[in-house]
Amino acid sequence: MHRAVRRFINIFKRRSEKDKRLITAIKTIVGSKPFNLELYRLAIKHSSVAKHNSQGLKESNERLEYLGDAVLGAAVADYLFKTFPFKEEGFLTEIRSRIVNRESLNNIGKRIGLNQVVEYDQKKKSKLSHKSLYGDTLEAIVGAVYLDKGYSYCKHFIIDKLIIPYLNIDEVIKSNPNYKSKIIEWSQKENKDVKFEIISVKNEKHHREFTAQVFVDNEPLGKGFGHSKKKAEQDAAQKSCELLDLD
Amino acid sequence: MHRAVRRFINIFKRRSEKDKRLITAIKTIVGSKPFNLELYRLAIKHSSVAKHNSQGLKESNERLEYLGDAVLGAAVADYLFKTFPFKEEGFLTEIRSRIVNRESLNNIGKRIGLNQVVEYDQKKKSKLSHKSLYGDTLEAIVGAVYLDKGYSYCKHFIIDKLIIPYLNIDEVIKSNPNYKSKIIEWSQKENKDVKFEIISVKNEKHHREFTAQVFVDNEPLGKGFGHSKKKAEQDAAQKSCELLDLD
Repeated sequence: MHRAVRRFINIFKRRSEKDKRLITAIKTIVGSKPFNLELYRLAIKHSSVAKHNSQGLKESNERLEYLGDAVLGAAVADYLFKTFPFKEEGFLTEIRSRIVNRESLNNIGKRIGLNQVVEYDQKKKSKLSHKSLYGDTLEAIVGAVYLDKGYSYCKHFIIDKLIIPYLNIDEVIKSNPNYKSKIIEWSQKENKDVKFEIISVKNEKHHREFTAQVFVDNEPLGKGFGHSKKKAEQDAAQKSCELLDLD
Repeated sequence: MHRAVRRFINIFKRRSEKDKRLITAIKTIVGSKPFNLELYRLAIKHSSVAKHNSQGLKESNERLEYLGDAVLGAAVADYLFKTFPFKEEGFLTEIRSRIVNRESLNNIGKRIGLNQVVEYDQKKKSKLSHKSLYGDTLEAIVGAVYLDKGYSYCKHFIIDKLIIPYLNIDEVIKSNPNYKSKIIEWSQKENKDVKFEIISVKNEKHHREFTAQVFVDNEPLGKGFGHSKKKAEQDAAQKSCELLDLD
């Protein structure tokens, strides 16, 4: 056989092997075979390995991630609305944001094995895996499932294959009470002034560390730390709750 | 007829008159008769006139608004995804946020005639109508349509009855009002000091996220976020315009 023909056949074989693996992975993750494989090929392509197409658009999973993020929000909103018929809007909003936050999605993405399928620039691995590589890919897959199989199928995929198996809603509710609002409630009852201040920011390699301090009537109370201002403030509030014996 | 019986009949008649009007209004707005009228009765009930039920839950449209907000986000995300196949995620996100923002929804809500159906405490009208009474009710109606007729019907309702007739997408894209200069103009007229400050910078995956804060006479007003200092300031200025009811 001519060498060029053989090379072509080899490329074709490799490609179809890769597609077969992807079809198997999607079947395992989503619960049924893809109709339009192209959507899933795109969903696993991180922008670090994406090329620009003839229209100048980067062919990465970012557009699907945008779509998936919105569909995920609607499906989880629906699920919580029906699961908690006697809870107010504020509760539903808070629990939803705990479910669809970056950390939580990244964990689910890892646990369903997206590390086996996602395509990204290996050289940038340490940076990416720190952050939201798997969560972003998970959102892109949700976007692909939505386009491939419709909203209803996608909603069941989200609830039955992602949320229920990997998140304990009771624990999500219990975990992470909002200490900041607890402190604020307490201060109003006790007629005290409360301030939350970021007193320092440290630049680390891949993130920043914030230090927050709670002041009650201008006296320092709990001090807290975190990668974001919000987390540092929560931590400071939690420590203040402990110091004040609020539970 | 016994007076109590007559009174009962009158109450019943009034109620059914009100229901008839609501059915007609929903048919006009949504395009078909409600299956479950109860959902729409709830959707038009602002919390200012809501009562607590036996489970202690306030029977207002706030839960439906939470649900409708999420469904609206998904439907608009889908619409823009398909309308702009060669635009990047950043563009889609930006245009979506211009479409589903409070001001825009409030305008659509007014224009489809929600002022005719919404139930609220008249004494609080001037406060409420300024802000988001119609936009919130619109979201609640979207939530009701979603539960009553399913996602697919609801998506068509959103796109064909709310977005396309009342928003010119080309103009939404072109329009990018300069909120910062609006705030500065206002401050000069009102003789106030205005400052724009970047209060934090967070390192994200491929970019930084800046947080800007507008101060008026040293009091914090709107806070905004963005990938650049300029965008964060614009966002903070826009939020300040909303808070100040400048349009």
